[in-house]
Amino acid sequence: MKKANKKVKAAIIIIGNEILSGRTQDVNVVAISNWLNELGVRLEEVRVIPDIEDLIVETINDVRKKFNYVFTTGGIGPTHDDITSRSIAKAFNLSYGYHKEAYEILEKYYGKSEFNEGRKKMAMLPAKALLILNPTSGAPGFIVDNVYCLPGVPSILKSMLGGLNDKIKGGKKILSKTMNLRTVESEIAESLEKVQNKFKDIEIGSYPFFKQGKVGVSIVIRFTEEDLISICYKDIEDFVKKKKIEII
Amino acid sequence: MKKANKKVKAAIIIIGNEILSGRTQDVNVVAISNWLNELGVRLEEVRVIPDIEDLIVETINDVRKKFNYVFTTGGIGPTHDDITSRSIAKAFNLSYGYHKEAYEILEKYYGKSEFNEGRKKMAMLPAKALLILNPTSGAPGFIVDNVYCLPGVPSILKSMLGGLNDKIKGGKKILSKTMNLRTVESEIAESLEKVQNKFKDIEIGSYPFFKQGKVGVSIVIRFTEEDLISICYKDIEDFVKKKKIEII
Repeated sequence: MKKANKKVKAAIIIIGNEILSGRTQDVNVVAISNWLNELGVRLEEVRVIPDIEDLIVETINDVRKKFNYVFTTGGIGPTHDDITSRSIAKAFNLSYGYHKEAYEILEKYYGKSEFNEGRKKMAMLPAKALLILNPTSGAPGFIVDNVYCLPGVPSILKSMLGGLNDKIKGGKKILSKTMNLRTVESEIAESLEKVQNKFKDIEIGSYPFFKQGKVGVSIVIRFTEEDLISICYKDIEDFVKKKKIEII
Repeated sequence: MKKANKKVKAAIIIIGNEILSGRTQDVNVVAISNWLNELGVRLEEVRVIPDIEDLIVETINDVRKKFNYVFTTGGIGPTHDDITSRSIAKAFNLSYGYHKEAYEILEKYYGKSEFNEGRKKMAMLPAKALLILNPTSGAPGFIVDNVYCLPGVPSILKSMLGGLNDKIKGGKKILSKTMNLRTVESEIAESLEKVQNKFKDIEIGSYPFFKQGKVGVSIVIRFTEEDLISICYKDIEDFVKKKKIEII
């Protein structure tokens, strides 16, 4: 049976002063987005916000109503600037305290004698949160309603995504096909717009690049139906050949 | 004369399906943020949104009221998916058409015979927009009120920031000092929180790292006053030494 062609949409909220200050280069958006593509979920918005409780609460409550899934990254560690769990509890009007299952996982992971106050803080979650297991470093993420809270450290975040595959109900997988051209955007803009106007539902992107001193343009076609992508690709190929532009 | 200690705040709006789809890794946030730090402007929010006119208009009108400066990246090229200029005109209720100065710059850059329709599109701007000159590739960015529109290609964007230094009126420069420790966050969480509670106005961040197979934590202290940063640093150093944690 074919999956319904309904769009399933997601947003990411990156919680972290270190991204805003320019100290840390985010790489989690690319990782989550590529994982969502495979599941047929479209990432349609990202917000990066500081470690400020009121702002987190407000942003969560704004975004969670607009998207099927919301993923947060960062702020679930043991230090004073890790306030995601507490803020999510507040956003959902849930109590915030020790989560039995999380407490047991962390106590087992560290051993009773090493389970100090800092580590215990990572077992403080919104009431009734579902856990996202962490195969890398013990401390779980958690789910409240459609909000999925993940850590900020990229290697740990990546190790936790696979465990969520069963929980995400995506639509059709978004497929993409790329054509790389030895040209500049202005040479193809008019013809490409005509193709876009013919295929209204297909996303056609045009991206200039510079590689080894040479300029070029990548045309990226994204859609859920492979046969329509091929027809659209052929149309672009036709005008490209007429213009004697090299396909790389 | 000392500059007033008023916070000057900025937001970035990244316009581009290619970032949301996971195809392209954004690097412009780090570049703009580091440049803003030097000017005494705090980046306090980033949004990544798709190439959809209504969403761009809505986001611009939401964000521009909340921040002193808003920077957009992407969507000012010659192809059909470049709709930033048109959307900004709409957000500000300005007419959208050929901008005399931009037209002249582009015509001179490409030469009359090579100034085709695609290239002419890059001279279509909101009425009365101020230009941001582009030393790399001709096509200018532009300013409407407190919204600064820049291209998405990182090398071109970077080349245009310097020309804006005179236009941005920042507050005091935000200084930062980092201490790298051979420890884990949970070992220092309690003591670090005490220091944070003592210095309410100073931003103290704690960031775990993994380098050459070893774990560690970076403590980052950010504030406008160097002497207070030093006092705060000393307090952290004191408890770190008591705990016999190695400073790397």
